[in-house]
Amino acid sequence: MTDTPAAIPSPRLATPVDARSSPYAAHRPVPIDNVTLDDPVWAPRIRRNREHTIPGQLAFLEDTGRLDNFRRVAGTSDAPFTGLYFNDSDVYKWLEAASWALAQAPEEERAALGRMIDAVIAVIASAQHDDGYVNTYFSKEREGERWSNLRDCHELYCAGHLIQAAVAHTRVTGKTSLLDVATRFTDLICDTFGPASEGKREETDGHPEIEMALVELARLTGERRYLDQARFFVDVRGRGSIGGGAYHQDATPLRDQREMVGHAVRAVYLNAGAADLLADVRDHALRGALEAMWANMTTRRSYISGGIGSRWEGEAFGKDFELPNTRAYAESCAAIGAVMWAWRMLLLEAKDDTRWADAIEHTLYNAMLPGLSLDGDHYFYQNPLEDDGTHRRQPWFGCACCPPNIARTLPLVPGMVATVTTRRAVGEELGPLHDTVWLHLLAAGTVRVDLPSGGEIELAVRTRYPWDGKVEIEVAELRDAGDLTLNLRVPGWCDGATGEVNGRALPPAETAAGQYATLNRTWRVGDVVKLRLPMRIRRMEAHPRVTDSVGRVALMRGPMLYCIEEADNQRGDVRDLVLGTARDLHPAWRPDLLGGCVVISGTAELAPPDAGWSGMPYRELGDRRVGVREPVAVTAIPYHLWANRGRGPMTVWLRRE
Amino acid sequence: MTDTPAAIPSPRLATPVDARSSPYAAHRPVPIDNVTLDDPVWAPRIRRNREHTIPGQLAFLEDTGRLDNFRRVAGTSDAPFTGLYFNDSDVYKWLEAASWALAQAPEEERAALGRMIDAVIAVIASAQHDDGYVNTYFSKEREGERWSNLRDCHELYCAGHLIQAAVAHTRVTGKTSLLDVATRFTDLICDTFGPASEGKREETDGHPEIEMALVELARLTGERRYLDQARFFVDVRGRGSIGGGAYHQDATPLRDQREMVGHAVRAVYLNAGAADLLADVRDHALRGALEAMWANMTTRRSYISGGIGSRWEGEAFGKDFELPNTRAYAESCAAIGAVMWAWRMLLLEAKDDTRWADAIEHTLYNAMLPGLSLDGDHYFYQNPLEDDGTHRRQPWFGCACCPPNIARTLPLVPGMVATVTTRRAVGEELGPLHDTVWLHLLAAGTVRVDLPSGGEIELAVRTRYPWDGKVEIEVAELRDAGDLTLNLRVPGWCDGATGEVNGRALPPAETAAGQYATLNRTWRVGDVVKLRLPMRIRRMEAHPRVTDSVGRVALMRGPMLYCIEEADNQRGDVRDLVLGTARDLHPAWRPDLLGGCVVISGTAELAPPDAGWSGMPYRELGDRRVGVREPVAVTAIPYHLWANRGRGPMTVWLRRE
Repeated sequence: MTDTPAAIPSPRLATPVDARSSPYAAHRPVPIDNVTLDDPVWAPRIRRNREHTIPGQLAFLEDTGRLDNFRRVAGTSDAPFTGLYFNDSDVYKWLEAASWALAQAPEEERAALGRMIDAVIAVIASAQHDDGYVNTYFSKEREGERWSNLRDCHELYCAGHLIQAAVAHTRVTGKTSLLDVATRFTDLICDTFGPASEGKREETDGHPEIEMALVELARLTGERRYLDQARFFVDVRGRGSIGGGAYHQDATPLRDQREMVGHAVRAVYLNAGAADLLADVRDHALRGALEAMWANMTTRRSYISGGIGSRWEGEAFGKDFELPNTRAYAESCAAIGAVMWAWRMLLLEAKDDTRWADAIEHTLYNAMLPGLSLDGDHYFYQNPLEDDGTHRRQPWFGCACCPPNIARTLPLVPGMVATVTTRRAVGEELGPLHDTVWLHLLAAGTVRVDLPSGGEIELAVRTRYPWDGKVEIEVAELRDAGDLTLNLRVPGWCDGATGEVNGRALPPAETAAGQYATLNRTWRVGDVVKLRLPMRIRRMEAHPRVTDSVGRVALMRGPMLYCIEEADNQRGDVRDLVLGTARDLHPAWRPDLLGGCVVISGTAELAPPDAGWSGMPYRELGDRRVGVREPVAVTAIPYHLWANRGRGPMTVWLRRE
Repeated sequence: MTDTPAAIPSPRLATPVDARSSPYAAHRPVPIDNVTLDDPVWAPRIRRNREHTIPGQLAFLEDTGRLDNFRRVAGTSDAPFTGLYFNDSDVYKWLEAASWALAQAPEEERAALGRMIDAVIAVIASAQHDDGYVNTYFSKEREGERWSNLRDCHELYCAGHLIQAAVAHTRVTGKTSLLDVATRFTDLICDTFGPASEGKREETDGHPEIEMALVELARLTGERRYLDQARFFVDVRGRGSIGGGAYHQDATPLRDQREMVGHAVRAVYLNAGAADLLADVRDHALRGALEAMWANMTTRRSYISGGIGSRWEGEAFGKDFELPNTRAYAESCAAIGAVMWAWRMLLLEAKDDTRWADAIEHTLYNAMLPGLSLDGDHYFYQNPLEDDGTHRRQPWFGCACCPPNIARTLPLVPGMVATVTTRRAVGEELGPLHDTVWLHLLAAGTVRVDLPSGGEIELAVRTRYPWDGKVEIEVAELRDAGDLTLNLRVPGWCDGATGEVNGRALPPAETAAGQYATLNRTWRVGDVVKLRLPMRIRRMEAHPRVTDSVGRVALMRGPMLYCIEEADNQRGDVRDLVLGTARDLHPAWRPDLLGGCVVISGTAELAPPDAGWSGMPYRELGDRRVGVREPVAVTAIPYHLWANRGRGPMTVWLRRE
């Protein structure tokens, strides 16, 4: 294995989406190792993920034969192939997770983590065929079946994860040990699939994923053909070339698609890949389709948690407003895919609109994070918004897509905190570069930004957000920053925000909800910006067509969705609590509870479930036999923290009357 | 084929459940050919079924190779086996349907129908192996796989339908051509399955069905061993002997089961078979389990339509109150199975409680009948209570369980109109027999009852029920009837019923809802009983735990559930109609509409669906932007008649506010 950092552009950016040289991307990402978080939510999760979850998952990869599948092909194991035909992808996703984690690991942890990574890479490399092909299922006795069932067998999907892992590994370590494996395989793929006019197969994979990977590989290596290949895979889809249907996003060409349909993870992965393309190629039809699909997803097919893909059958999107709570599928991987998609859309435009960042923050806190237990050892595949106490996180799955997906997403959160744009980059007439630093996610920590104009700025963010709305941002360091704009996100949920710079109040219009507070000045070290984001408890209702939630009430505070579970509410069944008439709901900081969180407490009513009901669960309207309701103290916790204690019912939506 | 009516008890009773000689059955059925209906709902459906649907289904059996599968085994066809491994059951169910229909066919139709039946029986008989085995899937090349996968392959399920068809055919025609085939197969089954102590296999089928069939075969032939075999199949289930789970009702012994779980059709078929057993063997544990399961099903796991089995995954029962409307599965066959079960429970006890008859009537009108189109050519497999207009009845299915199931159920409705009990039969001290004739289903027609005491009575029922609540019952004929009690059902939904005998009013207590009006006198020809059953329009609400329906309103009138569909309501989308505030709802007889029915009309409001909603389908409570609502005329039709016109949204539950 060669190890020369061949054609790798320098400085290497530890980021999954390096759009620096993409002509149609306005934002440049800030690499994950330039951001250090010490907020109450992400910092401990990221640490636990690196120190505990990632090593733990490696043990599962070993115990479940996922690594032996590679050794078997290499001839160093005679174990039979075990598990599902796409199990290789779990190994690749783990490698990506471990690589990103390595970028944030303190000195003392790096050696051990690096050894794990190198060992796994060696196992993978040893299973690569001479022609570059890598897939442990289609090796040995199934050698002849390569590419024989693209619709169902995930070969290109697995290749995509191999490529993403290689990109992460190279960007973090500078090594090309995995990149060499990935590029050799990619070259084989490029020679195999493409226009029939070039004597290639005009087909794609039943499970999108390789599109994102190829765009990024092109950005890393500067190889234009990988970008063209990604575009080919987007263009060929939807023509039924693989005999797929809506489930595989193969029923309609993407540019003609307006609604989110079929397998949710596949749908958002495809759209994320298409959004990647938009940073490098101008394509109005594709952009229009993605905007329409995003609108359909967020206004018609999303849970209040941000979860998507409501149907168990086919792990799929349901019809408009088909959003059942107990039978929600809302796969953790689908939420992660939605964040990938939103992040790539955010990067395209320097627009004073927080919708993408709002969606990213909301989905990370309320749809991705619930998939992981506080101990970092257990995972949800499905994320119901109501449960009778039987749905609990599992240590692993036969189809283990979610665990490593969460593990690779957590280290990337710091990378979504900030971006930088520059005037010239958004295509205005030439002039002196003017840089704008955007703060998208509000979280305590330090953010160092290399400015396109050459300078550098470091911001120290002090806040207890998301538990508190006070945010203090100090300019900690400056180098050749000169004239600079700071764009600070004022979340869409936040009415009545106020701000000040060095004690001077900002005009209210500057801190209106759903836009970025734009602060343009010549900054000096020690300058302090203060934002006050009121965190009123919000009682939410559902659209009348969301029939499973209509007539009920849910609680939100700041970016957090809340739920009520039995552990805090032992009287009766939480599903019989009437919250519509609840009195004196108030937030309370509970350092002792679930790693420290703000709960919402108050007094509600407990309705006897069967008073006035007999025979059938239906009766004539106006029958007012409701039984005696007793007032009970209720405590709601952030939804992402549910099911970390004893079994018992939980619900996000509570009775209004 | 022999054709001697061997050991067939005479007089033969054209009824699927002949509990005459069952020691623990209080009721004796009235054969279907003693009841002639001319009511507005059943009579035309039964006629259409006999004249059109049954011949049409035979064509499908032929066109889809279901009959060729038999000819192939007989060696008279060299077509390959086609369809699903349990397709034989469709042929058997068709034979049962045709046999029952024959019993009601006018002279001029009999010959043709009889020829169809005999031809199909000949085809089946020709496919029977020398050892009695009949199953076209496990013949020829799969000969060796017989009984190798009881859990999944439906061999005993198909045998059960063969037996039920044979029982029906013999009871209606007196012929034994099919009975001989069935008994030979049954004898093989009895020799193969049973206690290990007898050197037999202690296993059963993954799909219950044979239990009911064996009990009835025992009643027809007087063969006790068939009853013992049925009991064995009930007893052996739930011990995991076939490696099944809750889906197959194999996780828990039936006597220990309290909730309805797993595949809905399998669950109710098993319970119907168990209820059959209870008529012949005293078994308190089994009775207790069935009562508990019935209570769980009706109070927790039934739609307002009476539909059961809400989950698409596994065609299964959901958890308590898990009753989604658009994604309701509510298989037509499950509703039919629930009726079979309720009918067998009704027969056990002579009790002044209409709950079983109420459930039968409600389920037949609102859960079984929606499965069939008015033209008798199209069928629903799933029966959603809300739809966007895409769910439509199909002419046939690859898994075609529902069509012949509906076809065999319609001819049996007359058999559920009345029963007769006698004092001695309910085990009181000996004395002169006192007979009671029970009227369970209210429908115009004539009912001739042979009395246990030897006499006979014929009742002429005049009513427009279910469209009108006036019911007039005249004693049309009498022979040795003497002292006799008439028990007339006053439905559970009917408050304020009144009645009179020959012009003399009955005491109000006698016509209280949910019991039988008990009229004991010495009857004379020409005596007239009148019942007045008020048919108030009822606005229904759902139990707070039925989250998909709570906060909404549904309409009922008499036994009928109503729905609103686009064909009658062109302004806007019916799912945006607000019915809670509807004014002047009134019934109206529409002879022109859908074969003639009573609609419910009034004035509701149409809400603009998106006024006040943006971004997500959730907003803060108290946001009162509802947009301008326009008053609109609304027309609701009986739910069973939906989707007989153009495509368009339909909903049973409408917005309350």
